[in-house]
Amino acid sequence: MTENIHIGQNALQQLTDLLQNRAFSKVVVLVDENTLLHCYPQLKKHLPEHQLIQIKSGEENKTLQTCAYIWQQMTSFNLDRWAVLVNLGGGVIGDMGGFCAAVYKRGIYFVQVPTTLLSQVDASVGGKTGIDFHGLKNHIGVFKEPRAVIIDPAFLQTLPDRQVKSGYAEIIKHWLIEDGAKFEEQRQVGLLSADWEALIPHSVAIKERVVAADPLEGGYRKVLNFGHTVGHAIESYLLEKPGRELLHGEAIAVGMLCETWLSVKKGLLSQQELDRIETFLLTVYEKVKLNNEDLADIAAWALQDKKNSKSTINCTLLKKIGQAVYDQPVTLAEIQESLRYYQLL
Amino acid sequence: MTENIHIGQNALQQLTDLLQNRAFSKVVVLVDENTLLHCYPQLKKHLPEHQLIQIKSGEENKTLQTCAYIWQQMTSFNLDRWAVLVNLGGGVIGDMGGFCAAVYKRGIYFVQVPTTLLSQVDASVGGKTGIDFHGLKNHIGVFKEPRAVIIDPAFLQTLPDRQVKSGYAEIIKHWLIEDGAKFEEQRQVGLLSADWEALIPHSVAIKERVVAADPLEGGYRKVLNFGHTVGHAIESYLLEKPGRELLHGEAIAVGMLCETWLSVKKGLLSQQELDRIETFLLTVYEKVKLNNEDLADIAAWALQDKKNSKSTINCTLLKKIGQAVYDQPVTLAEIQESLRYYQLL
Repeated sequence: MTENIHIGQNALQQLTDLLQNRAFSKVVVLVDENTLLHCYPQLKKHLPEHQLIQIKSGEENKTLQTCAYIWQQMTSFNLDRWAVLVNLGGGVIGDMGGFCAAVYKRGIYFVQVPTTLLSQVDASVGGKTGIDFHGLKNHIGVFKEPRAVIIDPAFLQTLPDRQVKSGYAEIIKHWLIEDGAKFEEQRQVGLLSADWEALIPHSVAIKERVVAADPLEGGYRKVLNFGHTVGHAIESYLLEKPGRELLHGEAIAVGMLCETWLSVKKGLLSQQELDRIETFLLTVYEKVKLNNEDLADIAAWALQDKKNSKSTINCTLLKKIGQAVYDQPVTLAEIQESLRYYQLL
Repeated sequence: MTENIHIGQNALQQLTDLLQNRAFSKVVVLVDENTLLHCYPQLKKHLPEHQLIQIKSGEENKTLQTCAYIWQQMTSFNLDRWAVLVNLGGGVIGDMGGFCAAVYKRGIYFVQVPTTLLSQVDASVGGKTGIDFHGLKNHIGVFKEPRAVIIDPAFLQTLPDRQVKSGYAEIIKHWLIEDGAKFEEQRQVGLLSADWEALIPHSVAIKERVVAADPLEGGYRKVLNFGHTVGHAIESYLLEKPGRELLHGEAIAVGMLCETWLSVKKGLLSQQELDRIETFLLTVYEKVKLNNEDLADIAAWALQDKKNSKSTINCTLLKKIGQAVYDQPVTLAEIQESLRYYQLL
């Protein structure tokens, strides 16, 4: 584990130490209405004198306009280059707060305190910051490492079950691409008996290993996209269907199933392995209802979204449980077939 | 000279080579109405197929709003991460174009083609990018090195004399802080016989040396602020007085004179050296008229602008011609006195 990541019951105490030992000129905490209510009271005990910036929760607020508000607040607090911004929240707060800090006066320190399972195992590692622009996810941003990542699994108790399940999908993905033995062990344990104190560091370590091998996403880091080609298309497509929206991890779970099927179809993976993954995913995640009209639209979305040439898209597939291969071309028709397979399960 | 800086008659040819040898996915050129008219026809001959983004010239357009327009254009051209943005213009185009490229999809390549003397010897070296925010200069930005800097002195022929004089002030500053012999030599030569082909590389090399010693402006780089404490205050103050606005370099010339006087007053510099600098600056630059009411306001501006504690401000002064010292405290009263000295010249 990199030395700037602190996980466990003592993580917040390590934040206290960091803020005390370093002479930051000012401390500012970025929250939304949820983390203000559920997480800030706990965090507060570990902070020196500080100021708050509150924004509205939700991906729809991850915009330049919200950044302008955050910068305005930072300016009104007279923050200089030696100030630190503490981002308390899920992916939106972390990505956007990280970006705002990275470009304020050409860069001040920031600390990530992820409060959702998804952001604890995924968003807080890898130095990606960013905001959405004209509906394009993370279109504007920078690579910048936080000064520290503070992961306290106790925050998960403040989350609805659906949110926990969503984050769990990224953990499963990490097993499938990098640690087959762990998948085997944990599919027996299941979600309800999951030991987050142990699973989070394991999952963060996998992500760190992958990112360290390819920090700027030139090649190998693409294995992290497993489940995301189809998953992201479903997520985006259903976002525009009121009442049918999925959480990120719920969409990725469908995507992983489809892309596992594609792996078999391409002769990379065995039918047996597909069965094991399928059984596990369907135990954890309710099946998402897709009708016939949806299938072609979702497949088209996957292509369009990545602006791939012609009718193929490069996808990350599984070679075996615990090993992924990236840049595997799949066609529009194959993606649609994989969705059909899912639909008929 | 760093290998990514190309200066001289062949610089544009080196841009052609760079764009041909590297497989950039797309080339986009950022211009304003002036560089489109006066510089783009020359640049165009050296470019492969490309697209144009045009913005309005002027510091008042160096805003988040203009960035949003640039990003929108970049998006409409489907630029991916392997595209390159060529910034053709002065400081505004370079700073803002650099920033837009540095955060688009978490960073694409950019090339600076500075077209004013000021940006050729100053803005294009040092990796600073940024935009103004709520009237605060370069408040939002990042440190990011361009892929290349292409400096063609031929572009200076498109500039009004006043603009050339303005850039010359930064060249003089470089001599005063780092190369006393060059100052001695050039004060005999004067502006009209200045050999830009030789002076620009010399000046860029000084700036590079200073920046290399302190890339993130922690200490030594502050010597580049010589003339800027008082100069920037005058520039900002007169910006709000219609008809009295100064170009950046014109204000810095006044600032250098005041701060040279402060250097003598603090016992750092000899009266003789002040005389030499004063004679030279007053030969090149017309005296700026300041009335009694201006003096206190300008001094107050210098303090307020830097948000310094109490009534002192850290200033860069001269120890001798060719050597600067940074972090020298001066008081509001002393700044006002230096302005009075200038006023009575």
